[in-house]
Amino acid sequence: MLDMFNAKSVAVIGASHTKGKIGYDVMKSLLKYYEGEIIPINPKGGKILGVPAYTSIKEYGHVDLAVIVIPAHLIPATVEECGETGIKNIVVISAGFKEIEGEGPELENQLVEICKKYDIKLVGPNCLGVMDTYNNMNASFSSDIAHKGKISFMTQSGAIMAAILDYADKKNIGFSRIVSLGNKAVVNENDCITDFMEDKNTEVIIAYLEGIVDGPGFIEASRRASKKKPVLVIKSGRTSKGSEAVSSHTGTIAGSDSAYEAAFSQSGVIRVNSLDEMMDYGSAMALSPLPKGNKIAIITNAGGPAIMTTDVAIKTGLEMAQLTCETREKLKEGLPKTASSKNPVDVLGDASPERYAFALDTVLEDPNVDGVIYLVTPQSVTDPEGIAKVAIERAAESKKPILCSFFGGTRFEGAEKLLALKQIPNYLYPKRAVKSMKKLYDYSIIKDQEYPKPPEFDVDKGTVKRIIEDAKKNDIHTLGLESFDILKAYGIPTVGTAITKTLEETVKSAEEIGYPLVMKIVSPQISHKSDVGGIKLNLENADDVKAAYEDMMENIPKREPEAKIEGVQLQKMLSDGKEVIIGMVRDPTFGPMLMFGLGGIYVEVLKDVKFAIAPVNEIEAKDMIKGIKTHELLEGARGDKANDVKAIADIILRISQLVTDFPEINEFEINPLMVFEEGAGALAVDMRLMLKEEKKTENVSQTSKGSVSLESAK
Amino acid sequence: MLDMFNAKSVAVIGASHTKGKIGYDVMKSLLKYYEGEIIPINPKGGKILGVPAYTSIKEYGHVDLAVIVIPAHLIPATVEECGETGIKNIVVISAGFKEIEGEGPELENQLVEICKKYDIKLVGPNCLGVMDTYNNMNASFSSDIAHKGKISFMTQSGAIMAAILDYADKKNIGFSRIVSLGNKAVVNENDCITDFMEDKNTEVIIAYLEGIVDGPGFIEASRRASKKKPVLVIKSGRTSKGSEAVSSHTGTIAGSDSAYEAAFSQSGVIRVNSLDEMMDYGSAMALSPLPKGNKIAIITNAGGPAIMTTDVAIKTGLEMAQLTCETREKLKEGLPKTASSKNPVDVLGDASPERYAFALDTVLEDPNVDGVIYLVTPQSVTDPEGIAKVAIERAAESKKPILCSFFGGTRFEGAEKLLALKQIPNYLYPKRAVKSMKKLYDYSIIKDQEYPKPPEFDVDKGTVKRIIEDAKKNDIHTLGLESFDILKAYGIPTVGTAITKTLEETVKSAEEIGYPLVMKIVSPQISHKSDVGGIKLNLENADDVKAAYEDMMENIPKREPEAKIEGVQLQKMLSDGKEVIIGMVRDPTFGPMLMFGLGGIYVEVLKDVKFAIAPVNEIEAKDMIKGIKTHELLEGARGDKANDVKAIADIILRISQLVTDFPEINEFEINPLMVFEEGAGALAVDMRLMLKEEKKTENVSQTSKGSVSLESAK
Repeated sequence: MLDMFNAKSVAVIGASHTKGKIGYDVMKSLLKYYEGEIIPINPKGGKILGVPAYTSIKEYGHVDLAVIVIPAHLIPATVEECGETGIKNIVVISAGFKEIEGEGPELENQLVEICKKYDIKLVGPNCLGVMDTYNNMNASFSSDIAHKGKISFMTQSGAIMAAILDYADKKNIGFSRIVSLGNKAVVNENDCITDFMEDKNTEVIIAYLEGIVDGPGFIEASRRASKKKPVLVIKSGRTSKGSEAVSSHTGTIAGSDSAYEAAFSQSGVIRVNSLDEMMDYGSAMALSPLPKGNKIAIITNAGGPAIMTTDVAIKTGLEMAQLTCETREKLKEGLPKTASSKNPVDVLGDASPERYAFALDTVLEDPNVDGVIYLVTPQSVTDPEGIAKVAIERAAESKKPILCSFFGGTRFEGAEKLLALKQIPNYLYPKRAVKSMKKLYDYSIIKDQEYPKPPEFDVDKGTVKRIIEDAKKNDIHTLGLESFDILKAYGIPTVGTAITKTLEETVKSAEEIGYPLVMKIVSPQISHKSDVGGIKLNLENADDVKAAYEDMMENIPKREPEAKIEGVQLQKMLSDGKEVIIGMVRDPTFGPMLMFGLGGIYVEVLKDVKFAIAPVNEIEAKDMIKGIKTHELLEGARGDKANDVKAIADIILRISQLVTDFPEINEFEINPLMVFEEGAGALAVDMRLMLKEEKKTENVSQTSKGSVSLESAK
Repeated sequence: MLDMFNAKSVAVIGASHTKGKIGYDVMKSLLKYYEGEIIPINPKGGKILGVPAYTSIKEYGHVDLAVIVIPAHLIPATVEECGETGIKNIVVISAGFKEIEGEGPELENQLVEICKKYDIKLVGPNCLGVMDTYNNMNASFSSDIAHKGKISFMTQSGAIMAAILDYADKKNIGFSRIVSLGNKAVVNENDCITDFMEDKNTEVIIAYLEGIVDGPGFIEASRRASKKKPVLVIKSGRTSKGSEAVSSHTGTIAGSDSAYEAAFSQSGVIRVNSLDEMMDYGSAMALSPLPKGNKIAIITNAGGPAIMTTDVAIKTGLEMAQLTCETREKLKEGLPKTASSKNPVDVLGDASPERYAFALDTVLEDPNVDGVIYLVTPQSVTDPEGIAKVAIERAAESKKPILCSFFGGTRFEGAEKLLALKQIPNYLYPKRAVKSMKKLYDYSIIKDQEYPKPPEFDVDKGTVKRIIEDAKKNDIHTLGLESFDILKAYGIPTVGTAITKTLEETVKSAEEIGYPLVMKIVSPQISHKSDVGGIKLNLENADDVKAAYEDMMENIPKREPEAKIEGVQLQKMLSDGKEVIIGMVRDPTFGPMLMFGLGGIYVEVLKDVKFAIAPVNEIEAKDMIKGIKTHELLEGARGDKANDVKAIADIILRISQLVTDFPEINEFEINPLMVFEEGAGALAVDMRLMLKEEKKTENVSQTSKGSVSLESAK
């Protein structure tokens, strides 16, 4: 909860009577609507815009909110003063901090420290300010306060705040709270999400973000908020790829955006890609009830637009409601003969407001209809205002969403204004009404989403800890299948394998693993093992093993006299399984990110993989598997038997626990994991585990320009 | 060329002085602007809206255009009269023809016959009418004529005409010619495309279509037109799937929309999916020069929107221009210190019109810049009209496209009006400016596209004809690899194969085909051949063949006493090839449609295929191969050797010729075609060819509602 929005007194530190100065603009903005106390602070005292000024905040004393617009280098001392005066809420509009080179970052660090000391909530620096329309408070240098409404908006770009406010003014879209986040030195998006969630006037949360300060905190805050109110986020800008070299497939494929995509979908955030979508969906959500399902009816006075709208609806994932017989009978009776009583309901080009009203009422009563697209084109006899009024009246009472598309221009200006005034969602193009309806439906699902805790498996952490410590001691950073004990410790089944150095040892291991086996020569100098007879397949018994071993030891040194033979590797031969990959990389913002995909070309060429931020719960693990485009191949496509998808999910969950338990694991991959028929489980055949190299840890926290993760902000 | 647009005299048959009647509206529409002669025809004579009326067209005599608005059943006789009077151009607005049941279709057939007899160009019936703004002719019942402009527009939906006209009026978008197509009984989209192409006032052709009458004609007309002017088409509505059962993969995968998608891309048509896109792109194309390349610069007064715009530009397929050192130096000198002289060029929130002008001039001069996105947000000191004027002045002279995005609302109303008035493309959201720029670039490529003739291979048509006739005679409709001679006749290499009935024959054939071979038992009763020892692999010589044959003949009858053994099939064993599919189905609108894809899961699960309408030329054949998502797999992904893509292209071209030569081939598929390493060719391993069943041919011509192919329209 951010108390600043309820401030009953606001000090403007740096208030000015010189036009063109920000200290003047902020005073103007506040004076225009604010009903609380306004205290200009200016070393020269006197009166500013008619209000008596104080020479320092100390002179005046406590206020609920201080807005600071003085030069950057003077600000730390001023914030300190505020702290001493007991002020808990500050907005720093001034720039000159982390966003510039030189002393900027240091000044910002000072701000952070002082705020910590006094427990101050500080918005900014380098921002436009904040608004609360229900408190009539415009503590920003945007000249006009927004209309009152149900949307709360945070933005990392001041210009986008200005543009959206101007756009919303024209379209009569209202807001509750607005925050220009600036550098997010103290108050970040997570604080705002939580505040907006708690604000009783907010029903929709929208955000323009260029980066996220605290990934895990964001997921937590969004999960909580999105169960109460829709959270729509634009995340723009490409995060620059970390400087570390990646050495797994997972690392190669994970793009800078994968983690955001995964985190948003795991936390109920509706990601939007552009400002038009944000405003379209935001308005629908602020003004409309949610549909109970995805079945829509279209009411239209023209066939062509109805066909297009139907196309879009189906493509978007909505369904065309099958009207009941009663509805169709009623429509047939009440509409002209040539009208269509099927969905889309065509009330014909000469439809009057009354005819639209009849059709709308009839369709809204139909239990098969979850929402209505109310489509109007300007035919020669069309009465736009009359038809708009019908929608306005029905929308006031209906529990089903009615989204309008008055698709025209000059002749619809009056109707558009009327709909905007009465806060009825209206879209010029039918496509946008349909897409907004889809998002209403999506949110109806998100609202009920559960986020169960990840399971906690009974694992042997000690063994893993020991293996990792041993590796570190020996300056080893990459572990392979010789460290399968890590998997075993976490209950992940591995293919029988052994690396042996003598014949006796080899035969013993072979008996333990079981047949058939494959034997491979182990020598760092030999890369094409089969070329030198270094791979023997289908070893069925001890004799085969012995013969294979002796053949390798006798003949390979002849062919490769330079090679150092370290022994042989035995591995159980597998058949009939499907290869999949489970991997993990650490994202600088969100931490451990898991990847799942089918092996081979599916990952390498098709890049058909699904990511999720760990720790994942059972639903998320299953979603990862279902989330790849080729998941059918695991479910028995083309007459094949289905694979053991449950076993994969179990292993994903165990890996999730492993990489959460050991932050020193930087990258991880089981490739391949062989999955067998349903019930027959899965086996890790190879693994690659990269440990974090100590010196590099400091670099990890940088994300995109203008955004820094918690560690470095502290 | 449609002469009706240049009409110097227009008769309104069914003119009326009763308000609310269409015959009144049309008179009104014409009288408002038209400077030619207007002749109302009404059996009662007298004066209509002050103009002396004639009782019949015969009474008056020849006119350049007759607009008919009388009841449907009277129209054939009236059109006959027009024909006798020598009238060559008619618009039938009245409904009551093919679109309704009962006598409607028959009346329409009569119209078609009469028009044929007198060589009349007839638009409609069941339409809104036509306009030519440069002839000041509004021969429609839309009350206002469109503004003069460079776009010509045809539409199969009257309501969309009404909506677009109203929208365009508000946005000051102008048109040259407008046609409401109606039922397309005589004049269809192809006539309009050709007319618009020839019209000197038209620079952009846009169309809303629900179906296409003559597919091959459409491809021809569009190819010609799109080299001169952009052709933007919305194709809405799903064509209903033909009733014929499909029995090939190609048939299963080819959706109703695949043929449209293929035909559009093969004929230079820019397909758009919604009316907003159509108007966005249409305006850009009507008002802007084409960019020479895809490198854009963004000029902006705000960072956030610039980041988003950059994201969209890159995602859309544009590139951010790398500004030259000179440009950057000049920008550095002329702009404030904190401005960005890199692309996007950030002229800062306080940018004046002069600063925008300086940046725009500098960037336009840069040889690396092909086009400019001129982005403006409403900051506190922004002068929207001033900044708009800069764009207007530069756009008048620049040879590079300048697309504006004044992204705001209330404060930008003046600037928006100014830009609309001066015909400068302006988009509320930057995304739409970027996407429009991309389409300008796309068209610059299409404009230069060549459509070489398909090669004509020297083939043995006689053999194919004979095989097909034999099959028909024997009532066989599906041909398999026993008919490989069809492929051979068209120069398509096939795997060595033979079906033999005796040991002697088998050994002889084996020697001819060459080793290694695989032998399979041929028996309709045995489906799982390997279970009964009915498949023998790796036969290396005549002895192997003999042993395999004898083993089969001795043991299979014991295991399957009921099975009738017809012989064995020999086939050369192939290794190292990749399986691909080349198929063909007949589309009711466009005719033979080829499909290419990789075999197995790529086609069945991933549905990763590419379609093209035959006959295809070499460019199109190559595009089919490159058009699948997994084409990398053929080009040597993952260290594999590249496959013989040339051989595939050659076979596609030969199949294209085959299915064009023989319309009686209804479906066709080579599956698999084995493709070997570059230079090593490809071999058809199996094929499936379905002949048209005679009785069904009549059904094929129906497409979507309201659209019928040429055959049935004749």
